[in-house]
Amino acid sequence: MPDSSTHFSLQDINALPQRYRANFINSLSGFKSSSLLGTTDGRVNNLAIISSVVHVGANPPLLGIIMRPHTVQRDSLSNIKQQGVFTLNHVHTSWTDKAHQTSARYDNGVSEFEEVGLTPWFSDTFSAPYVKESAVKMGLKVEQHFTLCNQTEMIIGEIQEVFITDRSNDPSAVTENSTPRITIAEDGYVDIESLQTSCISGLDTYHSTHKIAQYAYAKPYEPLTKTSITKK
Amino acid sequence: MPDSSTHFSLQDINALPQRYRANFINSLSGFKSSSLLGTTDGRVNNLAIISSVVHVGANPPLLGIIMRPHTVQRDSLSNIKQQGVFTLNHVHTSWTDKAHQTSARYDNGVSEFEEVGLTPWFSDTFSAPYVKESAVKMGLKVEQHFTLCNQTEMIIGEIQEVFITDRSNDPSAVTENSTPRITIAEDGYVDIESLQTSCISGLDTYHSTHKIAQYAYAKPYEPLTKTSITKK
Repeated sequence: MPDSSTHFSLQDINALPQRYRANFINSLSGFKSSSLLGTTDGRVNNLAIISSVVHVGANPPLLGIIMRPHTVQRDSLSNIKQQGVFTLNHVHTSWTDKAHQTSARYDNGVSEFEEVGLTPWFSDTFSAPYVKESAVKMGLKVEQHFTLCNQTEMIIGEIQEVFITDRSNDPSAVTENSTPRITIAEDGYVDIESLQTSCISGLDTYHSTHKIAQYAYAKPYEPLTKTSITKK
Repeated sequence: MPDSSTHFSLQDINALPQRYRANFINSLSGFKSSSLLGTTDGRVNNLAIISSVVHVGANPPLLGIIMRPHTVQRDSLSNIKQQGVFTLNHVHTSWTDKAHQTSARYDNGVSEFEEVGLTPWFSDTFSAPYVKESAVKMGLKVEQHFTLCNQTEMIIGEIQEVFITDRSNDPSAVTENSTPRITIAEDGYVDIESLQTSCISGLDTYHSTHKIAQYAYAKPYEPLTKTSITKK
């Protein structure tokens, strides 16, 4: 065993109390995206925090989400099945409390938007609700929906439209070395740190980020270099 | 449209140049985990950076990864198919450059461990290589393997064992308000920030994190409270 490490076998993990195991295993996948899932049944607008968003492909533009059918996400899952569309909205570091409060078990017919104090917003061409306060908003159409080996459900959505807040004229935007950071770089990279997107660890812990480096394309037997393409 | 937002329709996205679109879409899923995938064909130990790790379930303990079959991850994918096992190892904030260098297209038969300067380490009971330098190491056995709608492949692995570096006696461990942070909290939460696990945005940008808050279980119509369960 490596020095000063704690070892857990599968038997150890299986013997953990349920809640302890949930916290433990949910921590192991590393930092996760912090997104609000917006759905509607045409009457009530639902909002649910999720940390299971995963990139599936860029062409066509696809994102996946994994949902547990018997949790508070049940309404959202039912809305997605019924309507075939949903939104994903980045959680800003200044209102992670509102985002987390959407995980409370509100009664059917209650809109989490209203309860937590976030604003539903609809685009002209899309029927699921966006979070007005989110700096990155995406509307997705269900492309594939299936059940995984543990009976959780995976939904793959194709991105139909994206809204990104333009902070280039905003004096309060995060700067790096006093240089304004460009929200969308010349190479297409969206600087989600300067948009103050948060991330999640475990089930309930939220974090801001600090950029370490952006690296250039790695080549064998050549030293890795940093890129500064986001700075003009 | 919300004030000062840039809008991209699906038509706009489809018209983007390939590399720009890859950077753009890969930024939208939010912050991603930063993991090294360790595999072997029994002779050469391969190592590949991946950002697609997703939590699938805690009981049984399952993680998913999504891989593109025609990329540099090809050797890793082939090893997983052949051996049925792989490791996931958290990338520390102090060596994100080594982790990213594993994305270079090395020839077949070359071990990325050697090329980037990380150390393969084997446990007594598991045949895939761990990264000795990683504070969180997991060994996984393939539980499900299937192809998604865009021909990428998803692999779900069951965690067989976990090694977590114990920093409670390490004076250089990150502290919060001068209070030593406990690596594994009483409730099972693993404090991956104090273990200095990094995260990724886009294809090539690495970040450290700063905890905003850990929230208590959310209940309807009750104010959300912060928990301090990680501090003893």
